[in-house]
Amino acid sequence: MLTVALPKGALLKDSIRLLQSVGLDFSAFLDSGNRQLQIQDPTQTAQGLLVRAQDVPVYVEYGQAQLGIVGFDVLQEKKPQVAQFADLGFGHCRMSVAVPSQSPYRSAMELPPNCRVASKFVHCAHDFFSKIDLPVEIIPLYGSVELGPITGMSEAIVDLVSTGRTLKENGLIELDCLYDSTARLIAHPLSYRLNQYNLEHWLNEISKNSQPLAAKAS
Amino acid sequence: MLTVALPKGALLKDSIRLLQSVGLDFSAFLDSGNRQLQIQDPTQTAQGLLVRAQDVPVYVEYGQAQLGIVGFDVLQEKKPQVAQFADLGFGHCRMSVAVPSQSPYRSAMELPPNCRVASKFVHCAHDFFSKIDLPVEIIPLYGSVELGPITGMSEAIVDLVSTGRTLKENGLIELDCLYDSTARLIAHPLSYRLNQYNLEHWLNEISKNSQPLAAKAS
Repeated sequence: MLTVALPKGALLKDSIRLLQSVGLDFSAFLDSGNRQLQIQDPTQTAQGLLVRAQDVPVYVEYGQAQLGIVGFDVLQEKKPQVAQFADLGFGHCRMSVAVPSQSPYRSAMELPPNCRVASKFVHCAHDFFSKIDLPVEIIPLYGSVELGPITGMSEAIVDLVSTGRTLKENGLIELDCLYDSTARLIAHPLSYRLNQYNLEHWLNEISKNSQPLAAKAS
Repeated sequence: MLTVALPKGALLKDSIRLLQSVGLDFSAFLDSGNRQLQIQDPTQTAQGLLVRAQDVPVYVEYGQAQLGIVGFDVLQEKKPQVAQFADLGFGHCRMSVAVPSQSPYRSAMELPPNCRVASKFVHCAHDFFSKIDLPVEIIPLYGSVELGPITGMSEAIVDLVSTGRTLKENGLIELDCLYDSTARLIAHPLSYRLNQYNLEHWLNEISKNSQPLAAKAS
């Protein structure tokens, strides 16, 4: 049976709405009482897997799910072996370098060499500072990266920014944007080539139905 | 000022209770309305940092916190450069290898060579299977590791087991225990050597007050 990996968190509601528009209803995942991580849609056409955003590409890479929806940020950080199909036009955010507003730096280039940068996205941060040829020490954190500069542990952070509220509340300002991120449709490459479970049809339908969302957002 | 890094999640309540018993009150972190990640105790003796469990050793390693409370599992996985002081006697759980109950394996040694093992604790899993000389492919996941065997992505998992309820609900059984875990008191090595902020006193007090907890649990 066709299996779709869905990300817990910020992208879940829009992902479920998009799949509903092509006839795959996984809205049971949104029921507050739901504890199941694996459900079938009512038409028995497909099953959904509810997993952490970072785990979506893992299930797709191993072919346990043929389709997945995940943020571009996760794909940039993990570089999984999956086929990227469509920009789904929701979940807009950006990966940014930020510093305390009272710091003297106004661009990432001005940061002092060998300074410390806290991030949950260590590969993205490393790639960015390599590209601008600035040696920095990346401090890997799992949450609340904004505490890095607040406690004095790091001069800067690299983190996802959506509304900018968290930065503002913590007295941080954005210096540079590494890239913009939105939700992406990904597929298992071999399943796509073999057109397993009529995959091409589903990819086309989902991509087509996401265009109004993408247009509305742009 | 003395800074103590406290772990969000399962260990937080007992950690705060233990620190209260030595006169450091960070119970404001337990207020449902609290959004602050950094607070001072009412006597202005110390400040508390509320961070992800995996980040506690990072703050202590960099000396941003002189003390921290964290699970032994995190120390085993991350191998941070921190001084380990006391077993605090709460937060009992164990790191275990588990498989679907209908699988033919009854010990980790019986798992087929090159099988797949899903885990959030990739280093612990790798160390364990190296030690028993069984080559396996570790699949790194961030959450809901029990989905690995359920979806057929992995033969086994390595994960923390507390009550065993999650395993049971997902039809999994434990094969072997890698180690038992409890909350540990850690310190920044240089701060300890220099006895910054009277660190020795606090380490002794906290260790002493944790003994009834440890005794009760054993």
